[in-house]
Amino acid sequence: VGARGYSGLELCRILLKHPAIQLGPCFATSADWKLSDFLPEASNVPVLPMSELNNACEKVDVVFLATPAEVSMKLAPALIQAGKKVVDLSGAYRLEADAFNKWYGHAHESADLLPSASYGLVPWAKPMPSGAGLVANPGCYATAILMGLIPVLRAGAIDASTLVIDAKSGASGAGRKAAENLLFTEVDGECLPYRVGRHQHLPEVQRYLAQWGGVEVDPIFVTSLLPVRRGIVAGMYARLSPAWAKLDDAAAEAKLSQAFNEAYGDYPLVQHAAGEKPAMLSLKRVAGSARTQISYVVKGGKLHLFSLIDNLVKGAAGQAVENVNRWLDLPAHAGLLDREGLL
Amino acid sequence: VGARGYSGLELCRILLKHPAIQLGPCFATSADWKLSDFLPEASNVPVLPMSELNNACEKVDVVFLATPAEVSMKLAPALIQAGKKVVDLSGAYRLEADAFNKWYGHAHESADLLPSASYGLVPWAKPMPSGAGLVANPGCYATAILMGLIPVLRAGAIDASTLVIDAKSGASGAGRKAAENLLFTEVDGECLPYRVGRHQHLPEVQRYLAQWGGVEVDPIFVTSLLPVRRGIVAGMYARLSPAWAKLDDAAAEAKLSQAFNEAYGDYPLVQHAAGEKPAMLSLKRVAGSARTQISYVVKGGKLHLFSLIDNLVKGAAGQAVENVNRWLDLPAHAGLLDREGLL
Amino acid sequence: VGARGYSGLELCRILLKHPAIQLGPCFATSADWKLSDFLPEASNVPVLPMSELNNACEKVDVVFLATPAEVSMKLAPALIQAGKKVVDLSGAYRLEADAFNKWYGHAHESADLLPSASYGLVPWAKPMPSGAGLVANPGCYATAILMGLIPVLRAGAIDASTLVIDAKSGASGAGRKAAENLLFTEVDGECLPYRVGRHQHLPEVQRYLAQWGGVEVDPIFVTSLLPVRRGIVAGMYARLSPAWAKLDDAAAEAKLSQAFNEAYGDYPLVQHAAGEKPAMLSLKRVAGSARTQISYVVKGGKLHLFSLIDNLVKGAAGQAVENVNRWLDLPAHAGLLDREGLL
Amino acid sequence: VGARGYSGLELCRILLKHPAIQLGPCFATSADWKLSDFLPEASNVPVLPMSELNNACEKVDVVFLATPAEVSMKLAPALIQAGKKVVDLSGAYRLEADAFNKWYGHAHESADLLPSASYGLVPWAKPMPSGAGLVANPGCYATAILMGLIPVLRAGAIDASTLVIDAKSGASGAGRKAAENLLFTEVDGECLPYRVGRHQHLPEVQRYLAQWGGVEVDPIFVTSLLPVRRGIVAGMYARLSPAWAKLDDAAAEAKLSQAFNEAYGDYPLVQHAAGEKPAMLSLKRVAGSARTQISYVVKGGKLHLFSLIDNLVKGAAGQAVENVNRWLDLPAHAGLLDREGLL
Repeated sequence: VGARGYSGLELCRILLKHPAIQLGPCFATSADWKLSDFLPEASNVPVLPMSELNNACEKVDVVFLATPAEVSMKLAPALIQAGKKVVDLSGAYRLEADAFNKWYGHAHESADLLPSASYGLVPWAKPMPSGAGLVANPGCYATAILMGLIPVLRAGAIDASTLVIDAKSGASGAGRKAAENLLFTEVDGECLPYRVGRHQHLPEVQRYLAQWGGVEVDPIFVTSLLPVRRGIVAGMYARLSPAWAKLDDAAAEAKLSQAFNEAYGDYPLVQHAAGEKPAMLSLKRVAGSARTQISYVVKGGKLHLFSLIDNLVKGAAGQAVENVNRWLDLPAHAGLLDREGLL
Repeated sequence: VGARGYSGLELCRILLKHPAIQLGPCFATSADWKLSDFLPEASNVPVLPMSELNNACEKVDVVFLATPAEVSMKLAPALIQAGKKVVDLSGAYRLEADAFNKWYGHAHESADLLPSASYGLVPWAKPMPSGAGLVANPGCYATAILMGLIPVLRAGAIDASTLVIDAKSGASGAGRKAAENLLFTEVDGECLPYRVGRHQHLPEVQRYLAQWGGVEVDPIFVTSLLPVRRGIVAGMYARLSPAWAKLDDAAAEAKLSQAFNEAYGDYPLVQHAAGEKPAMLSLKRVAGSARTQISYVVKGGKLHLFSLIDNLVKGAAGQAVENVNRWLDLPAHAGLLDREGLL
Repeated sequence: VGARGYSGLELCRILLKHPAIQLGPCFATSADWKLSDFLPEASNVPVLPMSELNNACEKVDVVFLATPAEVSMKLAPALIQAGKKVVDLSGAYRLEADAFNKWYGHAHESADLLPSASYGLVPWAKPMPSGAGLVANPGCYATAILMGLIPVLRAGAIDASTLVIDAKSGASGAGRKAAENLLFTEVDGECLPYRVGRHQHLPEVQRYLAQWGGVEVDPIFVTSLLPVRRGIVAGMYARLSPAWAKLDDAAAEAKLSQAFNEAYGDYPLVQHAAGEKPAMLSLKRVAGSARTQISYVVKGGKLHLFSLIDNLVKGAAGQAVENVNRWLDLPAHAGLLDREGLL
Repeated sequence: VGARGYSGLELCRILLKHPAIQLGPCFATSADWKLSDFLPEASNVPVLPMSELNNACEKVDVVFLATPAEVSMKLAPALIQAGKKVVDLSGAYRLEADAFNKWYGHAHESADLLPSASYGLVPWAKPMPSGAGLVANPGCYATAILMGLIPVLRAGAIDASTLVIDAKSGASGAGRKAAENLLFTEVDGECLPYRVGRHQHLPEVQRYLAQWGGVEVDPIFVTSLLPVRRGIVAGMYARLSPAWAKLDDAAAEAKLSQAFNEAYGDYPLVQHAAGEKPAMLSLKRVAGSARTQISYVVKGGKLHLFSLIDNLVKGAAGQAVENVNRWLDLPAHAGLLDREGLL
């Protein structure tokens, strides 16, 4: 649902080649829009108006909601009721009700679903029980940040009170909506901060760092708009914890390397390396991919950590498919090892 | 009028530093927009709502309309009536009534002004008589093309029946309007044709090539959207005329050089050079400038002619100021030799 | 051979996922370069110095030369001698000896191989006989242009004496070589012509338009550098032939559509559509893909034809794989239907 | 000296229009390079080979060295000896000898000049005494950072032990040198960190924050390469000091505003504003300008400070001219209020 948006289109692209999932009907608000113009392989996939959603979903097992939070919170209850597995790519089910109301600026219309929604950060999330259910697919910034910080916090490497996050995102992160400030002429040549200290992904980061990293953090958090189409670079900076500060820099980097190996040893979609600019690090090469690239430099007891993802794949559609893969007992990365840039 | 648009803002920028013109009140539809956010020197320039136009214009000599054609054709009559010099940057007064109706898709509402409107291609246009009047400021593509082709046609250099024009424009040419197809994510990485064979600047080019070049032409005409903020590159290609085809290529280039010298010898805002890639040729360096850069290569009896302008300066605001300069008996380039990129 | 260049790297990317070809050892001049930094799946692929080429090739069936023409013309003879199938991505074997000497500016060192080299434009080229042999993989501009023009010429649609080609290429077309004029600061914001009328792909276009289109053409030919990473847009313009000029525009477009269907009906890697801006047309979406996108507009008896490819895939590595697929009696598009942008 | 580099060319552009300084001969290593190709107004300015430097400088009062540090440290002594005012744009004279040797990786060849060199951060630097002398023009990152942080530190606003600096620069900051990692195809689509924790501007920042801010700081310091041509965005983040942390956020922002007014009230080249995204903030609009744009947000006791400059103007050529303006008792901003983008 929401096939015409950037994340929705990525979902279609991935699902069309998925070895074990078949793409069913898609839903879009724009009547004359043709999926096969964007994905030549999709000539047999019907694109239906939203009004046909409930009928048309009868035959499907899984529904992906690539819709705004306000739409998702209206659509999800009936789908769950109908026994569907639902993966919501919006922010509707990532926070508790109070936090949602505060950070999204309007009241939740299906808050009763919140307790049962599972925050689908892969590989950290627990597998879903079979049967109907709701996965809240993580936000793009939150994904990049959590993938990098959880192992660091678990290892006790940093003094969390010194944490600063400076994350930059490509323009597709804002979605395909006509807005003056997203015009080429406006975005090109700039790199400006926005929603400073009040981005709705901040409480999401805090909630799940507490859950999986075991630490309550109150970081400085800045987001900026990059003049690139896709990709997030999250820079995360902190002083080492007292215990780690006794190590020399190389030893600290080695221990970090070990921490990432432990965290992601069984998970094929993370690449990590110590060093200032590991050759594998590249926003362009992570684009189209469900991978997360992580690099780290320790210098004078300070940690410089970078996490790169494609905001539309690991940060949206790709992770949504990972969640379904696990739900269906497929390998988490099924259909996801092919990197492929659509934009 | 229309200060908030890209062309309007350029006008303000140029006029603020003009040695002999003082910028009066500006008009914009957006109430809370502040000109001084964009031009720090403009803190004393009032920005008024459109409703105050007629009152506020009482004290001014010249009114620039940086508004869409539909708005300009409504505003111009009263301003002329009030004795103002009016320079209209839209397409409202560049064509005859029939052609306007056909190419702009709606009926002209002040067609009676058309016969007296002067098409302000500088230096080709005749000076305006003093007193009230209306200058139709040329279109951006038309300017780039006419500046390059008029001297060539006057020299009899080409077989006009073979003429092909492939012109590319930066994204600011489409104005500051929120539209999906102008989003950064859409424009970046592309260079797609649009309005193929039906761009409204085609009849404008034809009309004034006939007037100043002395030849009726029916060229192949293609426009494309470049992933750059500002600037037009117009490529113009033709076989040489039989007389010129007898020359060797170097001799033909030398004669073209002479033709451009004759055309623009007294006009400081054209740079021209023979050769494949003269070092002066640069869209970035013409940006912010009222200059036109022209280069030409003759190879095997074929002419490859390139004309580069800034769509917002020579192609809009800068040429509008040239027109007023001449109207006020100032040097055509007064206030225009400073190059300065705003976007 | 030449795995570190942009085309070489694309070859590795494609071959790693090819269902029927196994990537053997790669060769690069840079000793400390690691393929797996760019392609995580390639951790087991050895990268060897050029000196080990002849030894290491013993076990392989096919050798791809992604090397400059000067290198290819030295390497190919021994490889052919050793019984290998050789696909050369350079310009070394696309022209006759005299033409090569003239357009490439130096003498050919293995001109005796030229008569047996097969110009591998797929699907136009005839299949290779089994056994050793040499395929000259077409140039990127030439590919885009020939794919668009051959069906048009075969249909007798245009007056070839009026043909003008204005082709623009992304910066990866110039290869990964450090050069001042290819720096980001230089290329960004520009779209300048280069090698006007003297690009080495012109004789290649002429030779094979004659061979497969049946017409000797002497087009105006312009190439420009686009500020995008990858992709070619070739604009091709001509007056219709007298026979076709009698048709109205829509009928001419319909006949063109038929001509493209006949030419490419059995070939899955061409998308074509009449119309000013078909929704499928997109440089970004063709990037990473072996597809060719073709659109055409007839207006007033004039043809506006556009052909879009990825210069690194259909214009280089992807077509090289198509050639080997056919050589090995695989479907031409084996391993090529996945679109995937690496840059 | 060094007119062909990006900073050198900017110097020429500014000086050509300076109301009180006349541009003398320029020096470049490339023999056939013509300044007037880049600056049409410069047709009378001679460009000489470096070998003529000492002779040709006889008649000039001021010499600008827009050369690498290794060249500047060789050229400066003789020029000072000859009684010239010298402004060096390189890093040769910004640090003490030991620090230079460590951070620039080679021994200083004219360390005896270091004690008398004046670090020219305007408006913080004291005016130069008349007569010969040496100004070390500040580095681009250092300028952006110091302009933002000095007033903050003087006001005692932050806990300096929590300071993190994440600064991003456009590609022109790396100069016009052919390097693979600066190719368009490499830079476009990326935003990667480099020289993490070891950038040579770090000790420069530390030295002058101590001098003018009164605090020894040991910040986390990250630099990244932006896919834009020019401009630096320096993000500076810290927890408020205990005294300031007692204020509510709005009160803290108001006090910061006062601190910037006190620091820059008499200096016309700083714009500052509290707020998340003040409308004046724009890398594109600061491009070509000697201005510094500063914005600040206080949220929950955390400071988010942004400082934007053009790396080539305030970060290089423009500040060099400011230094000479003050040396010659001209207004600091003479010749600098015109904004004009060359790239």
